[in-house]
Amino acid sequence: MRIFGIDPGSSITGYGVIDRDGRRLSHIDNGIIRPKVGSPYTARLGTIYDALVKLLRQFAPNTVAIEEVFVAKNVHSALHLGQARGVAILAATQAGCPVHEYPSRTVKQAIVGYGNATKEQIQVMTARLLGLPQTATTDAADALAVAITHAHTAR
Amino acid sequence: MRIFGIDPGSSITGYGVIDRDGRRLSHIDNGIIRPKVGSPYTARLGTIYDALVKLLRQFAPNTVAIEEVFVAKNVHSALHLGQARGVAILAATQAGCPVHEYPSRTVKQAIVGYGNATKEQIQVMTARLLGLPQTATTDAADALAVAITHAHTAR
Repeated sequence: MRIFGIDPGSSITGYGVIDRDGRRLSHIDNGIIRPKVGSPYTARLGTIYDALVKLLRQFAPNTVAIEEVFVAKNVHSALHLGQARGVAILAATQAGCPVHEYPSRTVKQAIVGYGNATKEQIQVMTARLLGLPQTATTDAADALAVAITHAHTAR
Repeated sequence: MRIFGIDPGSSITGYGVIDRDGRRLSHIDNGIIRPKVGSPYTARLGTIYDALVKLLRQFAPNTVAIEEVFVAKNVHSALHLGQARGVAILAATQAGCPVHEYPSRTVKQAIVGYGNATKEQIQVMTARLLGLPQTATTDAADALAVAITHAHTAR
């Protein structure tokens, strides 16, 4: 089973692709989508969507995992995050992938062992769990983390 | 100039289409997009997007106007509203339309004359301004209102 994790954001959207074969997880790819700095957010949504459509076509996952968000700094940032999530979820459903959401605490618990793990701990543990030669960037690591969480949960 | 107004929502998305010819405004169409009740919100985003893509192709507007949101009941509702807005804005930019946003207060001020106008006042005034035989539903009237606001502002 191939799982495509997404950590959406209006500035940077991380993605991480893993394969699960029984208990074995393999890393396929990870990276970030970073719309041009200073471009209007309306255009940024198009960049995120287009990049995800292309990546989902390239990696043809069976399922998409995405972090569920309960807290945000304020309504404004929640709206902007929601907009990025909206186009990410749209790209996933259009690619025929079921979308699974996991609360941030569940992801941290699954990867590091406790719900208040730091971003650095997520980077280190995703690299260790997948045998990466080096840690992924924070946003890509978060995307790998939610993909691994789905791999563990859906087992 | 043809203006397509959108009032996005994860349950009901209103739309309203008007033409502006000098000082004269004409009503072209209005309505609502209502994804199937009880369908998962991931599927609802696809319904909203598909319907808007079709409507934007049908009415071929020059520009899209959408209400800017500053307040929401809570982070959860802001996120869900953001997701609906995200796919609406994506559909507009993909249709080649510039997207203009107007704060709710500005829309109410432009249509009714003061920033705390009720939804019913928006319904009555949009019908009067466009010579509609009957008021539009609240969500469609809100979409017509933001389209009219853009017609006045862009003049």
